[in-house]
Amino acid sequence: MMDAPLLLSSFVKRAERYFPEKLIISRTGENTIHRIPYKDFAKRTRQLAAALEKIGMGRGVKVGSFAWNHHRHLELYFGVPGAGAILHMVNIRLSPEHIIYVINHAEDDILLVDHDLFPLIEKIAPHLKTVKHFVIMKDGLDLPETQLENVHSYEQLMAAEDGSYEFPEDLDENTPAGMCYTSATTGNPKGVVYTHRGLVLHSYALGMADSMALSERDIALSIVPMFHANAWGLPFAAVLFGTTQVLPGPGFAPGMLLDLIEQEKVTLTAGVPTIWLGVLKELEANPRNIDTLRMIICGGSASPKGLIRAFEEKYHVPFVTGYGMTETSPLVSLAVTTSAMEGLSMDERIERRSMAGLPMPGLEVRIVNENGEAPWDGETMGELNVKGAWIADEYYKDERTADAFRDGWLYTGDIAVIESDGYIKLTDRTKDLIKSGGEWISSVDLENALMTHEAVFEAAVIAIPHEKWLERPLACIVLKEGYREDDAMKAELLAYLESQFAKWWVPDDVVFLKEVPKTSVGKFLKAALRKEMAGHYG
Amino acid sequence: MMDAPLLLSSFVKRAERYFPEKLIISRTGENTIHRIPYKDFAKRTRQLAAALEKIGMGRGVKVGSFAWNHHRHLELYFGVPGAGAILHMVNIRLSPEHIIYVINHAEDDILLVDHDLFPLIEKIAPHLKTVKHFVIMKDGLDLPETQLENVHSYEQLMAAEDGSYEFPEDLDENTPAGMCYTSATTGNPKGVVYTHRGLVLHSYALGMADSMALSERDIALSIVPMFHANAWGLPFAAVLFGTTQVLPGPGFAPGMLLDLIEQEKVTLTAGVPTIWLGVLKELEANPRNIDTLRMIICGGSASPKGLIRAFEEKYHVPFVTGYGMTETSPLVSLAVTTSAMEGLSMDERIERRSMAGLPMPGLEVRIVNENGEAPWDGETMGELNVKGAWIADEYYKDERTADAFRDGWLYTGDIAVIESDGYIKLTDRTKDLIKSGGEWISSVDLENALMTHEAVFEAAVIAIPHEKWLERPLACIVLKEGYREDDAMKAELLAYLESQFAKWWVPDDVVFLKEVPKTSVGKFLKAALRKEMAGHYG
Repeated sequence: MMDAPLLLSSFVKRAERYFPEKLIISRTGENTIHRIPYKDFAKRTRQLAAALEKIGMGRGVKVGSFAWNHHRHLELYFGVPGAGAILHMVNIRLSPEHIIYVINHAEDDILLVDHDLFPLIEKIAPHLKTVKHFVIMKDGLDLPETQLENVHSYEQLMAAEDGSYEFPEDLDENTPAGMCYTSATTGNPKGVVYTHRGLVLHSYALGMADSMALSERDIALSIVPMFHANAWGLPFAAVLFGTTQVLPGPGFAPGMLLDLIEQEKVTLTAGVPTIWLGVLKELEANPRNIDTLRMIICGGSASPKGLIRAFEEKYHVPFVTGYGMTETSPLVSLAVTTSAMEGLSMDERIERRSMAGLPMPGLEVRIVNENGEAPWDGETMGELNVKGAWIADEYYKDERTADAFRDGWLYTGDIAVIESDGYIKLTDRTKDLIKSGGEWISSVDLENALMTHEAVFEAAVIAIPHEKWLERPLACIVLKEGYREDDAMKAELLAYLESQFAKWWVPDDVVFLKEVPKTSVGKFLKAALRKEMAGHYG
Repeated sequence: MMDAPLLLSSFVKRAERYFPEKLIISRTGENTIHRIPYKDFAKRTRQLAAALEKIGMGRGVKVGSFAWNHHRHLELYFGVPGAGAILHMVNIRLSPEHIIYVINHAEDDILLVDHDLFPLIEKIAPHLKTVKHFVIMKDGLDLPETQLENVHSYEQLMAAEDGSYEFPEDLDENTPAGMCYTSATTGNPKGVVYTHRGLVLHSYALGMADSMALSERDIALSIVPMFHANAWGLPFAAVLFGTTQVLPGPGFAPGMLLDLIEQEKVTLTAGVPTIWLGVLKELEANPRNIDTLRMIICGGSASPKGLIRAFEEKYHVPFVTGYGMTETSPLVSLAVTTSAMEGLSMDERIERRSMAGLPMPGLEVRIVNENGEAPWDGETMGELNVKGAWIADEYYKDERTADAFRDGWLYTGDIAVIESDGYIKLTDRTKDLIKSGGEWISSVDLENALMTHEAVFEAAVIAIPHEKWLERPLACIVLKEGYREDDAMKAELLAYLESQFAKWWVPDDVVFLKEVPKTSVGKFLKAALRKEMAGHYG
């Protein structure tokens, strides 16, 4: 067979040739929506590559982005790796210290920054050791006033190029294409390097009928930030398949997202539970037509069943939990319904939808605990391990590699059970697992149960040190408006759990919070909660 | 990213883990249908690998198969390459001389033969220089009486193994997995070697939403022989996706195929036009319920429009032309309807369905003629070139490699035009093209037009040497029953063409035949016709 490397630049060529008029619908500000056909996008990616090469981009050079989801960021997704350089998608929600750390650690030579985020970068610029050029992404050619040197206008750089640049075809498919850093619970963020091969195969997976079935017929809205785990790979795959894509720009207000879904007739979208909770609330308050949606993908943390039920039962939109992480490109598994699940009741279906689901073709999973590989019996817990062609095998120049990557597997840090038919169900993070009297208690199961109670808006169950049992669960609850934070409510919630779980699983106490602390990507920050509540059981 | 090779053995593991009860429905004889769940299939592939290793199979060893489409052949599809050996699927329809040639040329060490085909092999056995063992594939343990030595029973070899064998995971993905020979118009057949990587990526393509969308929900009937271009890759991809598959065994009678479609509720199937012409005739005579079919794929040669119309209009089954060849694994393109084609009339839709369609993601195509790369204008003809990860880059130990593989492309020998939206339309084989007075005339266009005439059963238009124009077209016609082969009919057919084509395209004459000579896989043997008719224009 031909030695034909799997390269991202082939996606651009394909979109340009077969879907020249399909649109990238890009919101760059409050009232600004660009509609860019793939033929123009393709030309712009080539202009971009040529322009960046003039300010020092070359093979293996790191180019940072600090940006929302919009067409210029998408141009970077292809223009940078297409030329053999590496796009480092900096998470704009990291602390300034961590932003400095990741840019220095990755050794970014050029940094492309959204104009509204530029003040943030200006402040930390003196600490950036490797960045030689800043490029401001903005509609129009004007530049902000700044003391910094080597600040360029994206559109001005582009205007100087005619698009005759051609992406090299002699790249090895294992050439690094991109990198993201994942926030660690302690210490600095850890870098993950993506290769062309990994991202191409990941894109193929998104197009498979039993996965997302991404098609040129779709109109895909990427809500997951493009600086977070490749926006789950949707922007890449959408170009491959010639899918119309909607990029929502800065500020993810639920109303704005619903407007985009309704106006652009979005068929598929992906985001974290927090987003969907907000969208649902807005939808109930101000109804929109979302009938075009054929799939909502929800991941990043466990999907509350009430949320799934609302979309599936009331709005008839398949609400599919996805599982993945920065280290996995990210798609590992999807809670799709297989033919064997046709006869399930709505309750059973929602139960399934809340799980992590079935792994993509091309990946392998297992669960391991103290006794070695655990059986797939839906009961025995173990740490989820993953391997495959789009799974990282190291953290970039980081000694924490040895913890997570062992004997050819990624140790995800997630505790799961696997049903006999292969469905993965996450029960906890290894770090969040509650070990009471030598037995494991799943905080996620307890949280999911609590979230089905009518009074509960958010629930986090954490392990608290305990003299006798070493650890005991504590339920931290945010109530919905109109419910009272009193002892009667505590008793009601605990009784509610007692009816569903073994007695020793039920938390010893409930505390009420105004808000659950969250990470930059909306995940519960249980470490902070544990620290705050550490003395609760004396 | 992890160095995770793309290997066929991973398909077996996946089917076994996630779809253990899904069935391989295998017809091995007149009234014998086996129903083998994937869990048993997986065990049997491991038994097979262990058994064959005991009689000399090892990495790089060639193992020949001489068999119909059934579960044992499918076991060979995985058991042989899974172990690092190479499965040579011998075309049982070749002439005895060519069968001897391909087995000797490939240097097959072991030959696995269907019991009903064994007499054929027995006859030529003295000429086979490398085969050391013959294995008879048959229900039951008994062996035919034979003078040959080292003849084993497949089921007896299997019975000695416990299935504890494990497929090696240290194979390079570029390891050869299989080979097929393609019949050349002159000279010996030419060998094509398939790699694990190529077959895995090809399988991914079959699962994509905009391609066949092959899913675990499907019930796929492989009518294309497993000794012909990997049965279009369906048996491989079906295992990957956990698709129920139906293998129709010996003797492809239309009635039997329709019975299988109806009884097993087949959703997707693939075969050559000759098969579908027979099936349609039988369906009209003896109606069956084929409502479960969601796609018929038709390839190998041009699909007559009347055939497409019958299935699309009367039976509401999408009838999709596919294009490919032994050298391309084989799927290059499919005549799928894109979103841009939604508004087409039935006639326009059928026109599109008769074309070769859009190339798979991962492949590149172009057309070239004397002026270099031809434009995609739907008019300019050129030889179709293809490249990509599942396209061959040579003929196995064959100096004809230099003709077909040039500057990184496969020169397919097919003349095509490409529409502005990328749809490929084949107009001829390079060898069948008619060059009249320096202009190209497409025999396929003329044939397609003739086939829409109510009197015509089959039509082949060929180039005949001509004193003045160098070549002129001649129409060779097989009439349907009840029509008279007379001058009035000739005049009517020529007038019919005149109403549709430029005058100089219309053949100078018509001859009536009882049958168009065909190759072993049902393609028109125009070379034979040209030879026979060479003096027709004097």
